[in-house]
Formats: sequence, C-alpha cells, structure tokens
Amino acid sequence: MKPREKRDPLPLEDAKSRLRRILETAAQLIHEHGYEKASMQQIAEACQLTKAGLYYYIRSKEHLLADIMNYGMDVFEEQVLSKVLPIVDPVERLEAAMERNVRLVTEGRNRAITVILHEHDTLTGQARAQINARKKRYVRFLESSFTEAMRDGRIRPGDPKVAAFAFLGMVNWIYKWYRPDGQLSADRIAREMRQLFFGGLRVRPASNREAAERSST
Amino acid sequence: MKPREKRDPLPLEDAKSRLRRILETAAQLIHEHGYEKASMQQIAEACQLTKAGLYYYIRSKEHLLADIMNYGMDVFEEQVLSKVLPIVDPVERLEAAMERNVRLVTEGRNRAITVILHEHDTLTGQARAQINARKKRYVRFLESSFTEAMRDGRIRPGDPKVAAFAFLGMVNWIYKWYRPDGQLSADRIAREMRQLFFGGLRVRPASNREAAERSST
Repeated sequence: MKPREKRDPLPLEDAKSRLRRILETAAQLIHEHGYEKASMQQIAEACQLTKAGLYYYIRSKEHLLADIMNYGMDVFEEQVLSKVLPIVDPVERLEAAMERNVRLVTEGRNRAITVILHEHDTLTGQARAQINARKKRYVRFLESSFTEAMRDGRIRPGDPKVAAFAFLGMVNWIYKWYRPDGQLSADRIAREMRQLFFGGLRVRPASNREAAERSST
Repeated sequence: MKPREKRDPLPLEDAKSRLRRILETAAQLIHEHGYEKASMQQIAEACQLTKAGLYYYIRSKEHLLADIMNYGMDVFEEQVLSKVLPIVDPVERLEAAMERNVRLVTEGRNRAITVILHEHDTLTGQARAQINARKKRYVRFLESSFTEAMRDGRIRPGDPKVAAFAFLGMVNWIYKWYRPDGQLSADRIAREMRQLFFGGLRVRPASNREAAERSST
C-alpha cells in the first residue's frame, strides 16, 4: 500500500476496513511505547500513510485514542457482552463472561483491548466520559449478575460491587503478566480462574449430600 | 523551604528524609500525569528545588523512576512481605498478605506503589531487571505459599501460578477503581476480597461434618 494523499472516495466497506487497520496499527504502537511517546508521525509511517494522509482519517491524537478505545469496546461487546447477556442462569452467565473475557485479553491480537486497560486515565473531557460510560455498563452487568446469583442463593453472599471489581482485576491484570509463548495457555488460564473464582463461591446442595454420604460410610 | 543550590553536606538523616520527600512528590506527579508527561522542571518546582537542585539528588529522569520504584518496593516489603513471611500456616500467611496488600494499595498516601503498578513497562535495561527481580520475589512467595497450602490439603488443588496472579490482579487492580471518598472503605474491601478469594478455597473438614449432621436430621 502506497502513501495515500488524494481524497477520492473509497467504497464504504473499504473505508471502514482501512480505518480499522489504522486503529489496530496505532493501538499496537501505543501499546509498545505508551500514548505520550508514540508520535503521529510514527503511527502514520506504520500505517504506510503520510502524516497528512493519517489526518484524513483521524482528527487529532486524542481523537485517535478515543477511536481506538471505542473500537476496542465494540470488539469486547461483540465477543463478550452480547454473547453472555442472553444466558438466563446468573452463575453460568458470569462464568461464560469470565471465560470469554480471559480469551479476549490473552488473544492479544487486538491491542485496542490492552490500550483500554492501560490508558484508563489518559483521555479527558467528553471522550473520557463516553468511554467510561461504556465500561460502566460492563461493571453494572457484573454487579447485577452477582446480585441476582446471591439473591437466588446460587453463590455465597457478599458485596456484589467488590465481587465485580475482583472479577475484573483477576481477568484484566492478565495483560500485565501473560506471555503468549509462556507455559500457561489461554485455555488453561480461563479454566483455572473460573474454577478458582467460582469453584468455592457456588452453593451446591448436591455436594453437601455427597459430603454426608462420605462421612456416613 | 527555599530552592537549594549550595552543595553543603546535610546530616545523613536529613539527606535521607529529603530524598524520600522528593521521591514521594515526584511519584505523585508521575501518578497524575504519567511518566512521559511529567517533566523534571515540574517535579523540581513541586519539590521547591531548581532543576539543578533536583539533579543534585537524582542522576536522570529514568534513575528517578527507578528510585521511586525501589522506594515503593521498600515500603511494600516493610509493610507486607516482611510481616507475613514468619506466619507458619500457609493459608493464614496468604490471607494476611492479601489484607496488608489491599491496605497498601487503598491507603494511596504512598504513590510510589501506584507508580510501580502502572509504569510496569516503562523502565529499561538493568533498572528494569532489578525491579522485576524484586517483584518476582513476591510472585514466588505467593506461588510457593499456594503450593504449600495445596500440598497440605488446606485449599482446593489448582495451578499455583494462576492462583498467585489471580490474587495479584484482584488486589492490584484496586488502584484503577478505588476512590477514598467512595462508599467502600479499605477495611470493607480487604474483608470482602479475603472472603471471596479464600472463603470457598479453604478445605474445611469441619463443614463437611456440619453438612452431614444437617442432612442426617
């Protein structure tokens, strides 16, 4: 792809997929160097555009960051939230959310997710408020699922807000330590975390019976 | 305190506490603005020093960051690690570590801790290796405590490395969402997280007996 200067209109799908590629490339650079250090010049070059060409797609560096985060939230909502919202059982819903969220963070192909997690305090003004509202939607989804599961006696009682943030911390912190070439696979991490978090949290009348049977023999 | 230019030696204790104050002030600014954005000029001014005065204490901006992190690790080791290492029972040891670690992150008086958590990828070379070695010591402490607790049948079996990083994620993520003026107190968070993480993880033969008694009546 050559530097693109002319303003001839692209078909809508081409324009969309080009913008997506720009956001993914920029996210990779911001992930590597941090938002402050990654320059628009550098990002333009990595996208094989001139700086003017980049500004054809993006209004400013702060808009770029907001676009990356909104794109990351789109991916997150498509791959995690929308898939688990229809699950009726609150514990199954939460377990599926954990599994899918772990996969999204470990996959790492999409650095927009890492940028959302790391640059949580970089945006200002309206763009910040808008991204925070999208993040809050997830926190509230977790909180209300925990509340529902506790109310139904499906998990041990506790503070649903702390449970929601504990869930998020466990899962989101992965971007800080996970190495795709390390010994732990994404599958393994997803399974272990689910078991660790929910294994003892679930209230299982069945296992009380089992315990009773074991101790009476 | 006036800007200090002259090189007359300070008594050792004064020099130490002055350096500590510089590191705390710089950590606060780096926490607020990020490492890249916080300038040495800004940091000098906040310390009521000239820039030359600041360089009397600190060799370079990267040395400043390394000094802040080492200072944060000193505080962490003093308030968390050294206090829990002597605890013989591995589950009690881990629970005490969680409680103390939550307190350290929520206290927030010491921003060096937040800087360690947030700027995990900023240092380079030897300084990075040195800080990472100190962090790794804590990860290994957690891992071996989990291994010990699993081997003794005190907690459900699982991968001790995932358990260690799940513990760290839950606790360290707090710096991203905790508001000192919010509804959740540090005490409450510490108690809830301990209960959430260890409540169902502990293997309690006693509660099996209780369950047996309940189900046989």
